[in-house]
Amino acid sequence: MLSKSQIKLITGLGQKKYRDQSQLFIAEGPKVIAELLDSGMQLHTLYTTDPSLFSVEVQQLNEAELKKISFLKTPNTALAVFHIPKPKPIANSGLTLALDSVRDPGNLGTIIRLCDWFNISRVLCSTDTADCYNPKVIQATMGSIARVEVHYTDLSHVLIESEQPLYGACMEGENVYATSLHENAILVMGNEAHGISEEILRLLNKKITIPQFGPEQKTESLNVATATAILLSEFRRSTER
Amino acid sequence: MLSKSQIKLITGLGQKKYRDQSQLFIAEGPKVIAELLDSGMQLHTLYTTDPSLFSVEVQQLNEAELKKISFLKTPNTALAVFHIPKPKPIANSGLTLALDSVRDPGNLGTIIRLCDWFNISRVLCSTDTADCYNPKVIQATMGSIARVEVHYTDLSHVLIESEQPLYGACMEGENVYATSLHENAILVMGNEAHGISEEILRLLNKKITIPQFGPEQKTESLNVATATAILLSEFRRSTER
Repeated sequence: MLSKSQIKLITGLGQKKYRDQSQLFIAEGPKVIAELLDSGMQLHTLYTTDPSLFSVEVQQLNEAELKKISFLKTPNTALAVFHIPKPKPIANSGLTLALDSVRDPGNLGTIIRLCDWFNISRVLCSTDTADCYNPKVIQATMGSIARVEVHYTDLSHVLIESEQPLYGACMEGENVYATSLHENAILVMGNEAHGISEEILRLLNKKITIPQFGPEQKTESLNVATATAILLSEFRRSTER
Repeated sequence: MLSKSQIKLITGLGQKKYRDQSQLFIAEGPKVIAELLDSGMQLHTLYTTDPSLFSVEVQQLNEAELKKISFLKTPNTALAVFHIPKPKPIANSGLTLALDSVRDPGNLGTIIRLCDWFNISRVLCSTDTADCYNPKVIQATMGSIARVEVHYTDLSHVLIESEQPLYGACMEGENVYATSLHENAILVMGNEAHGISEEILRLLNKKITIPQFGPEQKTESLNVATATAILLSEFRRSTER
């Protein structure tokens, strides 16, 4: 049985205000939840229709109850409430990704999953970037949020203080395929509609571009998540061959 | 004013059955519509709340009427009905992408947009791949559907007949960064959950993989759209430097 206060807590966690107040977030589906548990993320409560899936203490629900608290169109067996991990100090070495006002939760989730794949352990986000504990982001990360530190910060301040070279993805920059890329650097990706802000553009050591191919000039840039995929691959491939 | 039959036609075009019968599809938003008009896509009817945006004949609607026929949460000024172009014969040269049961409309739209960027003019789709005239796909392509031919076909048959080398993205293949890639080839991408089907795996000349980085083995593969972004970039970068 779900209490009224449980329902109120969980549905509230769809909103950033309540996540900030309670320092809790939710994750759904046995696979994502198992990844978060495995990585040591601290569990608050786990609700499931199938306790046999988990080796931790759970609260059993029927399907109608799970549907009531789920953020998914088709609820998937389990919903967990986790504690948001305490922020760590920002380390200052290794390849780091910086997001300047990336607003779409799906894009942010995809980017965090890419960071996990390419072993980028830190993402610096401007404070107006989508919240990584938004349920849509958590689902899109497929559990990789547990292995990637996400810091919300005064981005231009952190970039000014940093001694690492700053690369930024721009429509008009150096061809990334012909640029030598330092692995100990920060790569900045900008907003879906407006790219990198003027303030941060001025701080960049190098603007880089994924060239377009073919006769026609495209009016649209690449989506920020696909551009991030290509650029992280470019940074990592140089050490791999 | 919208007639009942217009409303019925447009809302029906959300379903593949009615798109197939009528050979029509819809696109929304002045930017996407302008791109399709520019590229010579044949217009059936254009509905808009702001006729000044277009130089073709339009049917003016008020916002409530547009909302009634729109597939978007927030309707964007215009909705157009276009004729589905007649299929062309499948050309047999240049880099071609093949999709084996890619089911998610958002992924398909992102992939078509990537093909446009990288000047891949042909996508071969298995018949169970998402329909490229689905409204969600059209919105995700941002107009690039007009510059990329999408063929639905018996994929294994076409691949057997093809004389181009066949590459396929797999979890266990050759490291793509260390593989020489022919530009006159077909790259096969598989289903979101199950990858490339057994039948098509057997036809591949080379399986390729985007390597994972870092100490931990990831349980999840990359999303098919981000993996396509990285692999198309790898095919094209070799000609670019």
